[in-house]
Parts: sequence; C-alpha cells; structure tokens
Amino acid sequence: MTSPRGFAAGGAYANIRNYGPEPRRDVGLLAADRPCTAAGVFTKNRVCGAPVQISRQHIADGAAQAIAVNSGCSNVAMGESGLRDARQMAEAAGQRLGLEATSVLIASTGVIARPMPMAKLLAGIASVSPSADGGSDFCRAMMTTDRVPKHRALKFSVAGRVYTLGGAAKGSGMARPDMATVLCFLTTDAPLEHAFAQSVLAEVADSSLNMLNIDLDTSTSDTMLLLANGAAGGPPLGERQGGTEARAALTQLCKELTRDLARDGEGARTMIQVDVLGAASLRDARLAAHTIVSSPLVKTMVTGRDPNIGRVLMAAGRSGAELDVSRITVTINGFTGYGDGRFQVENEKPLKRAMDASEVVIAVDLGVGRERATAWGCDLTDEYVYINADYTT
Amino acid sequence: MTSPRGFAAGGAYANIRNYGPEPRRDVGLLAADRPCTAAGVFTKNRVCGAPVQISRQHIADGAAQAIAVNSGCSNVAMGESGLRDARQMAEAAGQRLGLEATSVLIASTGVIARPMPMAKLLAGIASVSPSADGGSDFCRAMMTTDRVPKHRALKFSVAGRVYTLGGAAKGSGMARPDMATVLCFLTTDAPLEHAFAQSVLAEVADSSLNMLNIDLDTSTSDTMLLLANGAAGGPPLGERQGGTEARAALTQLCKELTRDLARDGEGARTMIQVDVLGAASLRDARLAAHTIVSSPLVKTMVTGRDPNIGRVLMAAGRSGAELDVSRITVTINGFTGYGDGRFQVENEKPLKRAMDASEVVIAVDLGVGRERATAWGCDLTDEYVYINADYTT
Repeated sequence: MTSPRGFAAGGAYANIRNYGPEPRRDVGLLAADRPCTAAGVFTKNRVCGAPVQISRQHIADGAAQAIAVNSGCSNVAMGESGLRDARQMAEAAGQRLGLEATSVLIASTGVIARPMPMAKLLAGIASVSPSADGGSDFCRAMMTTDRVPKHRALKFSVAGRVYTLGGAAKGSGMARPDMATVLCFLTTDAPLEHAFAQSVLAEVADSSLNMLNIDLDTSTSDTMLLLANGAAGGPPLGERQGGTEARAALTQLCKELTRDLARDGEGARTMIQVDVLGAASLRDARLAAHTIVSSPLVKTMVTGRDPNIGRVLMAAGRSGAELDVSRITVTINGFTGYGDGRFQVENEKPLKRAMDASEVVIAVDLGVGRERATAWGCDLTDEYVYINADYTT
Repeated sequence: MTSPRGFAAGGAYANIRNYGPEPRRDVGLLAADRPCTAAGVFTKNRVCGAPVQISRQHIADGAAQAIAVNSGCSNVAMGESGLRDARQMAEAAGQRLGLEATSVLIASTGVIARPMPMAKLLAGIASVSPSADGGSDFCRAMMTTDRVPKHRALKFSVAGRVYTLGGAAKGSGMARPDMATVLCFLTTDAPLEHAFAQSVLAEVADSSLNMLNIDLDTSTSDTMLLLANGAAGGPPLGERQGGTEARAALTQLCKELTRDLARDGEGARTMIQVDVLGAASLRDARLAAHTIVSSPLVKTMVTGRDPNIGRVLMAAGRSGAELDVSRITVTINGFTGYGDGRFQVENEKPLKRAMDASEVVIAVDLGVGRERATAWGCDLTDEYVYINADYTT
C-alpha cells in the first residue's frame, strides 16, 4: 500500500476483534501526502453497511486523501446510530491526520448487526501512527478469518515515466463479491483522471474481484477503493494517454490479489480456477464460471482429489449458460476428463494424479461460441464448517 | 407407493450401486393394474440424463402404466449410447411386466458420465417381483446417500368417495430442484383428468419440491411423476369437480415429502425452514427464501447453534428481493432476533436456547408487501464434506 510515493499507513490494536486465536491489530489508517483522485466500487447487497453509505457520500466528489478501517465489527444494519458511528469514525480519523472528515473514506468488516464499540475504536484510531513502512500493519488490521495478509505492488510506465501501483485486500468468507470484494484498497502515485479511474476500476472489478467466489455470500461491506495522488508527476492519465498501461497494471494487480484471496478462502486447502471457453456471450461465460467454481459438489470433488467430472457438467448445465453437450470438453490441470461426448475413462488415473496439487485449474469449453471468463474459488473443507459454526461466540 | 388401490412395487439388488456401507437394493419397478393418466415434471438442467429424455417421450401422450428406477448410475452425458441404454431399460421393464416399452417411465440416479452396467441392470429388472407390499423396497432401491427411505400416503375424498394418494422421494445431495426434485413418484387411485393432473403437478412442485435447497446443485436427473389409475372409481377429477380436494392432497403430501428430504439432506443434523413474509411479489418471496436457506453462512450458523442474525440479513440483502431494512424482522423458532432496526440483544440467550432443536424455523418479514413463501434445507456439517469428497471412489 505504501510502495507508491507519498502514502503512509499503519495499524493498531483496539480490542474490537476479540475473536480468533490471539490479539491482532484491528484498526488501520492509510493517508496520502496530498488530495487524491479517488474511485470506489461498493457492495450491491441491499442490506449495506453504514461505512459503505458514508464512504459513498465522501467519494461523491471524486476526491479523498485517507482510508480508515477496522475489523471485528462491520457496523451493518444498525440504523441511525450506525450512521452516526460511521460519521464519527471518519471525523476521528480526519482529526488524527489533520484532514476534513469528508476526505476520509471508511470501511468496517466483522460481525453484522452489532453496535460498534466506539470508545475502543476512537482510542484505537488515535493510537495509529502511519508511516512509509506501515502497509503490512494496515493490511493486518483489516483481517478477520484471513490467515495471511494479502498485499502486492507493481510498476508500470507511460512515456518513460515510472509509476507504482499498490494494493491490499481481505476476504476469506462471505466472499462472493458483487461489483467489489470484501475490502480492497489500491494506491498509486500516477495522476489519474477521475472519470477514467472510476470506469477502469469498475471494469477491472468485473474481471478480477467480482469473479471470486469463496462461498456465494455477498458481504454487506464490500468496498474497493483506489487513491491516486499523482506524486510521480506527469500529465493526467486517461483514455487519451496512458490509459492502456494503467488499465493493464490495475487488471494484473487485481487478478493477483483475487488469486491471493481465493488461496486464503475460509478453510481452503486448494485454490480452484475455472476457465470457461467457447461461450456464446461474456455474460454466459461469467455465469458458468461462477456456478462451477461455487458448486459445493465441484468444491468437494477437489477436496477429495476425485475426478468426478460429471459434477462439472452438472454445474455448467444448471448455470443457465448455453452449451452443447456433444461438443463440451472438460480438462483438469491439462488432462481431458470429458470430450467427444463421453467420459475419458482412460485419463482417470492421470487426472487423479494431476489434481494432487495446491491449485486445480478446471477448463470447460461450452462448444457454442468464442467468449471466455475466469473465476477463482477454493475447495470446501471441514475447516470451513468449523470456522463458521463458531464465528460470533 | 402401493397404498392406493391397484399399484404393485418391488426392488432388487443388482450391484450397480457399489458404494455405501453395505449392499442395498438398487433396481425398482412400480406397476399399475391398468393404464394411468400420467403427469411429469423434469429437471431444467441443460445437461439432462438419457432417462429424462426417454421418459419425456413416453409421457408425451399423457399415459403410462409403470415406472422403472435404478440407483448407482444416472446415465447422464453418455451421448447416443446412453439413449440406447435408457430405451433398453424401458423395454426390459415392459417385458418383465407384460407392457409396451412406451408405457414405462424410467429414472436413474447416481454417478454422472459413467456407462450404465447394462448386464447388471437387465438381470436386476428381471428379478424384481412387484407386489402390493413392495413399496418400501421400491423406495429403498432409488436411495443413494439417503439415510432413510421417504414415502408417505394420505386419503382425501370428493363427493363422499375416498381416494388414496401415495408418494416416494429420494434426495440427499445435488438437491436444489428446478421444476422437480431428484426423484419423486406419486400414485393415486383417483381418476384425474390429464390436463388437470399436469398443471396441478407443476404448480405443486413450485411450492413444495422446488423450494427444497440442500446444496444449490440442480441434479441432471430430477424427475417427478404422478400415475393416476382411477381404481377407486367415480367421474374424472379436474377443475370442474374435485380439483380443490386433489390439489390440496397433492400439496400436503409433496410438502411433507419435501420436509422429509430436507431432514435427510447430506450430512444434515438439523432441518431448516425459512418462511419469508411481507414480500413485494411471490417471485421475491421465493428468491429470498431460497437464498437464505442455501446460504453457507446461515447453514453453519444453525450448525453452531449461534443466533448470528446478521447473516440472515446479509442473505436476504444479496437475494435481490425488495426489502426495507428499517422494517425487516427476523425470528428464529419464535424469538425475535432483529426488529425495530436493531439486533434484539436481550433475546440472545433465549434465541440460542431455541435453536437447540432438530428443526430451526427462520421467519423473515421483508416489510414491503404481502406475499410469502417457504423453503426447506438443512445445516452444513463436516459430514457433508466427507460424503462428497469420497463419493465416486
């Protein structure tokens, strides 16, 4: 998060997140050294958190300078008092950083329908000291059941000038993002035009984070934010100049973060990638990829390392995507399991061996067109059940 | 199945279903003593089994006299050879019963994309001896991971004449029926008009079996069949006479079977019933009920006996159904968990106690209209993972 020039971040322990194996940071602040072009994509869940509502207001002018986060309590479905608490969170962060509250975007993740412990939150915010090497602490502060922090950075250049793009995400469970993922924050020192930043962010979300499906459940707190401070100089990047490079960099970084999220899905032992090819439309390709990657029976087929390829056909068939059973092919990690209208029984042993990997790629050609899409998820294990049967208490 | 007059059934052991704890019956025959009015509802999965395709042909004239079933192999995605095998299955059953093949409806359930072991199947069919007390054997022959056979019967009367309605179903996994459930067979000695029988069957499926959701995955073999032999005499029942009574009887029986299926969902320890009230439309009510009952996080909330009511709000919110968060109420087994725009924290302990039951009823009032719907499912346990990680091998 702090790899691009002019960003500082940090995290502190506020005792809001009082579950999990040991005390962990649960409040974080990210601040830019100057006003940024800001773009955001938020949950489509009709029950959405107070922080999402406040951030939507604060980002409406296309500008922001800081992000405040907490884990342990999501401040969702708390009515007017929830909105008051969310406003106060932005004010406290602004005060700590010497900024107007409206320059601060906020995000909360954790238990739904519980009041935010404001005394703890405010004390926590006051104790954060953002610095250039605090990106990892910020990232840890937003983890819930995540096992590892997920942050990445890359460089891209436009007309000889080098820009840096950083990003951090948390996911783990309730992670079937709809227009954004649980929490994903991006920073860059490139000077982005606002309209360009917003449209590219939505487009990138659709092919990366929105193709993540850990467990079908769309969070009420999904938030994806991009802050561009322009600290690396140069003219504003947009469709006329540098747009191609910026779009490619954002897409790559967000796909990498999406894979990181899938790898760290709740209870996951295996990442599953589903490539759908030969679809009649992009909508069909995405629909089939999502349905296959989230099917409990496909997930447990991977858990058991069992090339029960019929389940992939079943999931493709129920997705509603157009397909031709006589032309469909299914491969797993490169071995064909179904093709020429029949189960390739001679490949059963190699298929089984090929599945004994930390990543299983299932490619399905629907046989009716040229569109394609990729979705990411993970296997379903007893660990997922234990984690979620025990979460609030 | 054999409670109505004039029906005989039986099951035999053919060694097709070579998984599970011990050898079990896996081939069954049901036969009526005369030609029946027949109605059917089949899977909407675009990959559908050869038996479904053949049964659709055989039922096209609205008449049938027998049903042949097997478990262990579903004969799905096998191309032309699958269709040949399915036709031969109907012919063999017809031969055994002294009927034309076209009077026989067939259904197969089990592993997808594997060839049907025809020698075993044909030997099994030849060894079945249907009788008036063979309903339970028939029912056991179609079980896969089902733990208990599910069959019921009831009586209804029209103009002083008493009719009997019987039914059997199997489900367990891959059980999110779309227009029908995995396998559900109904028999009656009432003389039903064909057009009435078909329209009522589809209508009843929508409010009963189609509201079952064990694990989102729609089977490629879903088949629901009704045979009415008219053995109890009287004029044909239809919209003009007896339709109300027949519809009520069918609805009651199918809802009872649906609850039986939910109770016996794969790995289930707890049945979950979701009643959605106050919806803007019937479509919204059904959508919200399905989304809530199938949410992995709601299911594990029940597994853990944890009134984490926010997950119910999340699932209602992501369903797409219209709702008003400030007017929504959520009760669990009669205790209010969310209402007046807040979590009813004072009810946390009674809620927890109330959830310690074999059936958990979650009622959600969306606060925007008058429509309602009910869906049935079960909790998600480690047992579901073990069953499905080990299924084919």
